[in-house]
Amino acid sequence: MIANNPIFIPGPTNIPERLRLAMAKAAWDHRSPAFGEIISPIAKGLQQIFGDPGAHVAFFTGSGTTGWQSVLVNLLAPGQRVLAVRNGMFSERWIALAQDLGLVVDIIEAPWGQGAPIAELGDALAQDSAHQIAAVLAVHNETSTGVRSDIAAIRQALDGTKHPALLCVDGVSSIASMPFKMQEWGVDAAVAGSQKGFMLPTGLAIVALSDKARALAAANKGPKGCLNLEILFTALTAGSFPFTPAVSLVSGLAESIEMLLEEGLPQVHARHRHIAQGVRAAVTAWGLEPVAHSPELFSDTVTAIRVPPGYSGNAVVEHARNRYAMNFGIGLGPDGDRVFRIGHLGYLSEAMVLSGLAVAEMTLHDLNFSLTLGAGVAAAQRHFSDKTEA
Amino acid sequence: MIANNPIFIPGPTNIPERLRLAMAKAAWDHRSPAFGEIISPIAKGLQQIFGDPGAHVAFFTGSGTTGWQSVLVNLLAPGQRVLAVRNGMFSERWIALAQDLGLVVDIIEAPWGQGAPIAELGDALAQDSAHQIAAVLAVHNETSTGVRSDIAAIRQALDGTKHPALLCVDGVSSIASMPFKMQEWGVDAAVAGSQKGFMLPTGLAIVALSDKARALAAANKGPKGCLNLEILFTALTAGSFPFTPAVSLVSGLAESIEMLLEEGLPQVHARHRHIAQGVRAAVTAWGLEPVAHSPELFSDTVTAIRVPPGYSGNAVVEHARNRYAMNFGIGLGPDGDRVFRIGHLGYLSEAMVLSGLAVAEMTLHDLNFSLTLGAGVAAAQRHFSDKTEA
Amino acid sequence: MIANNPIFIPGPTNIPERLRLAMAKAAWDHRSPAFGEIISPIAKGLQQIFGDPGAHVAFFTGSGTTGWQSVLVNLLAPGQRVLAVRNGMFSERWIALAQDLGLVVDIIEAPWGQGAPIAELGDALAQDSAHQIAAVLAVHNETSTGVRSDIAAIRQALDGTKHPALLCVDGVSSIASMPFKMQEWGVDAAVAGSQKGFMLPTGLAIVALSDKARALAAANKGPKGCLNLEILFTALTAGSFPFTPAVSLVSGLAESIEMLLEEGLPQVHARHRHIAQGVRAAVTAWGLEPVAHSPELFSDTVTAIRVPPGYSGNAVVEHARNRYAMNFGIGLGPDGDRVFRIGHLGYLSEAMVLSGLAVAEMTLHDLNFSLTLGAGVAAAQRHFSDKTEA
Amino acid sequence: MIANNPIFIPGPTNIPERLRLAMAKAAWDHRSPAFGEIISPIAKGLQQIFGDPGAHVAFFTGSGTTGWQSVLVNLLAPGQRVLAVRNGMFSERWIALAQDLGLVVDIIEAPWGQGAPIAELGDALAQDSAHQIAAVLAVHNETSTGVRSDIAAIRQALDGTKHPALLCVDGVSSIASMPFKMQEWGVDAAVAGSQKGFMLPTGLAIVALSDKARALAAANKGPKGCLNLEILFTALTAGSFPFTPAVSLVSGLAESIEMLLEEGLPQVHARHRHIAQGVRAAVTAWGLEPVAHSPELFSDTVTAIRVPPGYSGNAVVEHARNRYAMNFGIGLGPDGDRVFRIGHLGYLSEAMVLSGLAVAEMTLHDLNFSLTLGAGVAAAQRHFSDKTEA
Repeated sequence: MIANNPIFIPGPTNIPERLRLAMAKAAWDHRSPAFGEIISPIAKGLQQIFGDPGAHVAFFTGSGTTGWQSVLVNLLAPGQRVLAVRNGMFSERWIALAQDLGLVVDIIEAPWGQGAPIAELGDALAQDSAHQIAAVLAVHNETSTGVRSDIAAIRQALDGTKHPALLCVDGVSSIASMPFKMQEWGVDAAVAGSQKGFMLPTGLAIVALSDKARALAAANKGPKGCLNLEILFTALTAGSFPFTPAVSLVSGLAESIEMLLEEGLPQVHARHRHIAQGVRAAVTAWGLEPVAHSPELFSDTVTAIRVPPGYSGNAVVEHARNRYAMNFGIGLGPDGDRVFRIGHLGYLSEAMVLSGLAVAEMTLHDLNFSLTLGAGVAAAQRHFSDKTEA
Repeated sequence: MIANNPIFIPGPTNIPERLRLAMAKAAWDHRSPAFGEIISPIAKGLQQIFGDPGAHVAFFTGSGTTGWQSVLVNLLAPGQRVLAVRNGMFSERWIALAQDLGLVVDIIEAPWGQGAPIAELGDALAQDSAHQIAAVLAVHNETSTGVRSDIAAIRQALDGTKHPALLCVDGVSSIASMPFKMQEWGVDAAVAGSQKGFMLPTGLAIVALSDKARALAAANKGPKGCLNLEILFTALTAGSFPFTPAVSLVSGLAESIEMLLEEGLPQVHARHRHIAQGVRAAVTAWGLEPVAHSPELFSDTVTAIRVPPGYSGNAVVEHARNRYAMNFGIGLGPDGDRVFRIGHLGYLSEAMVLSGLAVAEMTLHDLNFSLTLGAGVAAAQRHFSDKTEA
Repeated sequence: MIANNPIFIPGPTNIPERLRLAMAKAAWDHRSPAFGEIISPIAKGLQQIFGDPGAHVAFFTGSGTTGWQSVLVNLLAPGQRVLAVRNGMFSERWIALAQDLGLVVDIIEAPWGQGAPIAELGDALAQDSAHQIAAVLAVHNETSTGVRSDIAAIRQALDGTKHPALLCVDGVSSIASMPFKMQEWGVDAAVAGSQKGFMLPTGLAIVALSDKARALAAANKGPKGCLNLEILFTALTAGSFPFTPAVSLVSGLAESIEMLLEEGLPQVHARHRHIAQGVRAAVTAWGLEPVAHSPELFSDTVTAIRVPPGYSGNAVVEHARNRYAMNFGIGLGPDGDRVFRIGHLGYLSEAMVLSGLAVAEMTLHDLNFSLTLGAGVAAAQRHFSDKTEA
Repeated sequence: MIANNPIFIPGPTNIPERLRLAMAKAAWDHRSPAFGEIISPIAKGLQQIFGDPGAHVAFFTGSGTTGWQSVLVNLLAPGQRVLAVRNGMFSERWIALAQDLGLVVDIIEAPWGQGAPIAELGDALAQDSAHQIAAVLAVHNETSTGVRSDIAAIRQALDGTKHPALLCVDGVSSIASMPFKMQEWGVDAAVAGSQKGFMLPTGLAIVALSDKARALAAANKGPKGCLNLEILFTALTAGSFPFTPAVSLVSGLAESIEMLLEEGLPQVHARHRHIAQGVRAAVTAWGLEPVAHSPELFSDTVTAIRVPPGYSGNAVVEHARNRYAMNFGIGLGPDGDRVFRIGHLGYLSEAMVLSGLAVAEMTLHDLNFSLTLGAGVAAAQRHFSDKTEA
């Protein structure tokens, strides 16, 4: 079977050849001055991509979960309270991690498909007059549901209640693909990963802290081990690594940042939105509905699609893989089989996404979904084409 | 602009990663026994792919034109007469090459879009009672028009007239993608190139001769230089090369043959036909017509499409490239601008070809062709989907 | 400057082309069944390489330090006592990590250049009649000094005192290069990393536990987060990953293990010893001394070499890099400048190591060390050559 | 066996990673404007490397032999006389090719190991008062013997006799590694190949003509086929290719030229000389003699070494390959077994060549040559080291 179709899972993404070649370099001495010289441009680029020229950035071997964990163990201590929204699989996982690490988590439940409920968050913060809540944990882009939460509004809720809690944001599936404004939104800790908007393989966690957060981290004497961000910040600023770094991924990250800045961040964001709109037009033309409840919640990196009663989301993913050699994302969570997901982030052209939509459409057709073959593709084409039909 | 769309020129094709990695090996000593060991499996594989277990096969640095030239200088001598059909750009080029090399070419003209006119060929052979015609030059698959000629019928015309002329066939854009039956069709010389069905970069000419042709070549004392096939056959049989070989391409050829045989030649041919039928369904749905005059002529590797009066084939190719970063083939020849071509050979999945059709469709739409967006894609999807619409 | 010399740092190592190509594959869906299928052979291979067919193995995104940390947080709890030897930079780092994680570390000091002092360890264990020491932390191969400690003897010390403490071993720079006998030595936890004997880039921590250790880890309710080994074991056994895995490194690990088993582990170990003996012959011929105090301590993966008074180890490393484009390891620790290191592990031939020795020799000569040019190379050649001089 | 030793055959050379990555790009449309844009910089770079800013350059799919053949069929016609020196395998091959193509070759015999005998050439030209000799064929660097001929002196012989014959030079194993002065030496046709100084795989022939030669070629109506240089010049100047080009090699050539010009041609030449001197110092220290009769003949790209009576050159090459996994060049020609060759061209560092010398030395030692292990390496080290021994 032909094995070079693009993939449409919501990360890892298609890896551009330019990045694969950048990583395919020979072994390199991480103690040589040459390696140190690529750290500073990476740090500067990350500050732009996170949207805060003064952010303290670190990148280290790990997955997104490692990034979260580093935020929790550096900024908080067992027994402290944090406030978190549970509206999808990744917010659930972050909550579970926080609990595993000994934090007390006040959970605001929201339906999967909703964003962070700002009013309830505001209420919870207002009620916490003793300021026992040390941090708010938010997921910017919930990959399981394709829902974007309004981080700026969470900041307003904090400011409106004059609550000093830290604002910690999971931006794993948004940063470098969708606008992220760390400074403007007053984010204290943000987490990204190499395998999403950075278009690299999994393997690097990327974390940024505000001044306030870094000061807290430096003062925090809890056990951190190799997740000690202060040690990382200090070493990186000096052009070195405290632990043996993943040299090939770090080289890839340098090249990835160069690619993103060459294209221009506004252009990268606009491209993701443009592609996502095409996908959503197809979904509508198929007569299906996104998991996300309303348009302002739509993610520009992943669309989770609800299948009608009597159909199986897993069957869609399986048929597309087995019959057409194309990978989509399965639904996650307790109702996972009611959903399938199309990832549309990273290095993706209109042409590539159209092949994904055409295959998804054939798959649905093969599985007796009620739709007209070509309808979804045509809807996306109308969005992509220069000239709309009269 | 996103730079990793598949390409739809009629060769070179998309290169599968497996082949790129096979070629990306370090320099290798072409005089070492290890290198010699890959020659014999290549030769055996080529015999299968050319459809003649007894064929004498050679591969050497060059393009398809080099392959043609080797056939002409090894089997013929200046002043000899050959019979050739002119029905497209590549048959025209072969004729010009033969003339340049001093051969006298009896040309049977056929409209571009027609196959080799068997009756006229038969007449010409019948009239040549003195058997002055030393060879018939035929193009199996005319890449400029997307037309397949009936090589078996040419053999019948030769046999029907008891004419001893050699049958020399250009299979550059058919061999390894479409059925080729050297033995059954009584082909004396067949030419292929690395950059088409073998899915490799350009750089290797591949030639096969019948016993009769090899004997003639061995006896031919004309100037051949590095195109001396007898020297090549002898060296290759002994596991060596007479001239410094293109080591990376030869390694790629070994891997390519392994891929083709793993999939199975009947499966490879069926896949090409399946993909081609999808393309043709789209063309019909666009209200356009192929250059090929009738269905039995349709090529399974390339479709040349006529644009309506007032439109420009070159404009189609240019717009697709500049606006959607996708490469199609321009029309060739005097009426080139009336045509554009979709190459659909090599390592191509249904998903990939659908992205090409979707982009072609948007391009035609952008350029004010009269069509319904999605119609062509839907027609291909109906062909590809397991379940056709009632 | 010519940039493709082999490197002689003690990890990351030269990456064989076969592994680079295996990693340079396109993005892959880590939730697809195909990816799950490579996990089980990796696990089986790791059991062989660690020397325990029943070991519980896990591999996850991280450096060697992450591996250590996973052992400490899974098997121990803050406040518990552990016994550790400090005889080099990496044992020092492991002690610091344990302390950072809240463990109480009983430290046995040994000179850098010595192995773990078995008698003192035995005494400490014997004195601990209350069995408060929960674990012994040992470094099998101390990369900073090129010293191998006798893990079997530590086991005997434990058994001799009937002490139930866990035996936790850092095998980062020995496993897959030097014999490691987890079962025979009664090791409860062993740590390796992708960037040493496995010849891959940094990025994967590899951990193996005994039955006893796994049971302890499963019962341990302390905070572990993404370092929870029980979750990893369970997922890997089921053919999946609990967190997004580093797909390219995991693919590389599968290929690396295949390479090691194809060569044969005894052959891999013998090759490392053979190469190391050549290096040591050169060092002796240069009139220099290894940091390791006696031959039974000599590491087969790295040789730390003491420079005479008045010379600088850092200057050696710098001159080799700047003048000959070759990387050696700097000395580490407080007396780092008195030492330089030659890494000789991974994919290294006699020819490659001779180029390293020749350059080291020229460097020493350039820096006015007292030696005869060629003497060290000749000593290694005598060791490597089939025919020793009479 | 460890498979990544550098190779020491006299071409193909070690391929730098930068070039391998440049070639490992995806398929590319050779009719797209983007591809046309790399032709002009290649042409300009080749003019510098050939040493003639006005040279007409062409590159096409083929080996060095194809390049020779293109010169012969474009500039000459069957029946014409040419004058050639036979002093090695490649001059012999060029003579045989000329004869095969119908030229009458006046052969001046010289011992293998000698350069072109200038006095005899002058005599032959002087005697040809009717100017029947249409061309002198010379090999700049005879790869079989490691002998450089004096092309400037041949020009003087032509000028001294006022002979109008063309001067055609095989620079396959010298151009891009050793100084080549097409303009200053009045060379009319020069041939190079991708697999030597350009550090690429075999597959591109590179040819340059003087104004006079191009005019002759354009007027020459003989059969040329795909070797028609005028067609190539015209197409390349217009930014296109007349035949399907070897896209990956052409991309590699562009990158190779960039590498050579970045380093600087004088620096590239000096580096080759420096490395060659190291090799020759080792040969002398081994008590062996080069095939080249005197120092002014020494090639800077390959050294052919004579083995003493009773020894076998082939055995040296075989033992090095089988025992140490290193490839050297076998001797060529009737006395081939009396010789082995060390190629030292292309992307080669001091460190790399020292590994080759160390292995050659061990091999000679294993085979009972009378030498002191380390002596040859030490001689090369003395040459390479900054500080020579007092």
